[in-house]
Amino acid sequence: MERIFDYDQLWQFTKNVFISIGSNEEHAVLAATGLLSADLRGVDSHGIARLTGYVRLWEARRANPKPDIRIVHETLSTGVVDGDGGLGLVVAPVAMDLAINKARNVGSGWVAVRNSNHFGIAAHHALKALKEDMIGIVMTNASALVAPTFSIERLLGTNPICVAIPSGVEPPFVADLATTTAANGKLEILQRKNQEAPEGWIQDKNGNISTNPHELKDGGALLPLGGDKEHGSHKGYALGAIVDIFSGVLSGANFGPWVPPFPAYVPMPQNMPGKGIGHFFGAMRIDAFRPADEFKKDMDQWLKRFRQAKPAKEFERVLVPGDPERIMEIQRKENGIPLMHAVVEDLEYLAKRFKISPPR
Amino acid sequence: MERIFDYDQLWQFTKNVFISIGSNEEHAVLAATGLLSADLRGVDSHGIARLTGYVRLWEARRANPKPDIRIVHETLSTGVVDGDGGLGLVVAPVAMDLAINKARNVGSGWVAVRNSNHFGIAAHHALKALKEDMIGIVMTNASALVAPTFSIERLLGTNPICVAIPSGVEPPFVADLATTTAANGKLEILQRKNQEAPEGWIQDKNGNISTNPHELKDGGALLPLGGDKEHGSHKGYALGAIVDIFSGVLSGANFGPWVPPFPAYVPMPQNMPGKGIGHFFGAMRIDAFRPADEFKKDMDQWLKRFRQAKPAKEFERVLVPGDPERIMEIQRKENGIPLMHAVVEDLEYLAKRFKISPPR
Repeated sequence: MERIFDYDQLWQFTKNVFISIGSNEEHAVLAATGLLSADLRGVDSHGIARLTGYVRLWEARRANPKPDIRIVHETLSTGVVDGDGGLGLVVAPVAMDLAINKARNVGSGWVAVRNSNHFGIAAHHALKALKEDMIGIVMTNASALVAPTFSIERLLGTNPICVAIPSGVEPPFVADLATTTAANGKLEILQRKNQEAPEGWIQDKNGNISTNPHELKDGGALLPLGGDKEHGSHKGYALGAIVDIFSGVLSGANFGPWVPPFPAYVPMPQNMPGKGIGHFFGAMRIDAFRPADEFKKDMDQWLKRFRQAKPAKEFERVLVPGDPERIMEIQRKENGIPLMHAVVEDLEYLAKRFKISPPR
Repeated sequence: MERIFDYDQLWQFTKNVFISIGSNEEHAVLAATGLLSADLRGVDSHGIARLTGYVRLWEARRANPKPDIRIVHETLSTGVVDGDGGLGLVVAPVAMDLAINKARNVGSGWVAVRNSNHFGIAAHHALKALKEDMIGIVMTNASALVAPTFSIERLLGTNPICVAIPSGVEPPFVADLATTTAANGKLEILQRKNQEAPEGWIQDKNGNISTNPHELKDGGALLPLGGDKEHGSHKGYALGAIVDIFSGVLSGANFGPWVPPFPAYVPMPQNMPGKGIGHFFGAMRIDAFRPADEFKKDMDQWLKRFRQAKPAKEFERVLVPGDPERIMEIQRKENGIPLMHAVVEDLEYLAKRFKISPPR
């Protein structure tokens, strides 16, 4: 059911697809690199499996292949970027670079983005900060699949938060988390396998706990991290809301139930209050707080202490956020990236449609 | 079992206690106001019930009543404050004011604090930003009670995150959440009533799920938001870790298992890598992103949409983070603050010890 592909093959193919829909060389490189970072890190739901989705957004004129990405407002430490309806994969690097530049100048930089589109995995953009000895922070809102605590309406996206923190000799801390109990990608896996979901992931259209992975098609909703009130779902709801407000309201993008959907066949929301989807990027220079070497020494001690923590007996070891993805990236760079049959078929369709070579 | 007290009575008494342990007038006012904001907002575990705890920290020479609070490092948008071992209730306002001033000048301000102590509820400090048309962000680490996912060791505190966001005519958004399934205060309530805890709040010393609220005395641990891996506890663990690193490692305070305990009878950790406990404060000026009136109009729309969301049939309505505390504050300002008998006895003991009038 799976075939293994070389990273370079997939990258070249993906770049060619973006060029075929009108991206220039620079943007196609950014988009291919961003998209495939998900496959490298094992977040298969957000990688090349979505390439046809991006093409369909372009076909539906919901994504602009030649965006004029502009800074529309700024102070020394903040800014707002208008992505001109471009792919988030192309808009996000501009905004993250702006945040990093501001951090270089005044210690920190914070950039809200409007009029953008899905940007792949948050970690890809946050990781950029590490090379600069900065902490990277990335958020994005997304179309509404999640019901707030006590509600039966879907008002929030899975709204991820990513924080990447530099270190000395230990591998860095990279947390990248949807603010729901389970990311939508995990649910999609259960849908494909027709397996039940654990309790606490989803509810049905009346707000009852459900384990049916297809519940969302019938008016159900994903649940905020925590699952129910007794287990802290009001906290997951609050976190998802913070991401929505920082990304959507602070930038002038859409927010809450008005965030445009990724699948091009889903109708756009009515009476949208803003432009496109919103992101939020932050960068803090370590030595704007402490000498970087002192910070890194302490951060190494932190990382070592947690990696060496005593595991419960059924577990091999305790992980630090980012460890599974980092290990996966090493493996996949070496051994290639496995793609499911359905994804390979999609890529072959795209190759034919755009008259380009399929990946081998 | 409860007695009702007037806010002003409790405030005057609390201020007198802080003066009795050596605080100057200004610091005593800050400390009393900060501490009692918890009682007003219904977070009884963090309010005047802890006053004897602060006194014991002072007796044990673990809190400095006459701190020389200093800015030890700064850039235009960042800074580090050394609290000189003072009460967090006194140190935190200095740091939050610094963040607000920086935001006034360059759009945002971010201040890490070391060598501090417990600062009451995070929301009290974050709310300050609202009057300035700024978003307020507050975090603090705390002594280790929480086991990372897969671990049986307690390595993190309940490490809260607070985000306060201004609005126009709607009441504002104020999320203040421990990064655990349940805050320690909720567990203390169950301990007093000898009631079982829901599954997902705590584990025993071997990492097994437990419902015994006294489990922490026997080597058990609180669980990160999510409870277990299947329900996203690795996300709660990541969030608690981010708070720990921003508060502790970025400032040069202690972190992880080395954060000093609040109860003065608990021995200090060995080989502490930093100074005191750490906090982290942020302020972002709304109009450093968008004109404040545009933002507030959208924020009102956001708040209204969520407050009017359709509830599941067993619930009356959907709340926005901060609603329960705001409603409680209105009630308690009008009707007084109920204190449990044990707390009243503590206050009478303090009145006698310091020869001051008890509250009536």
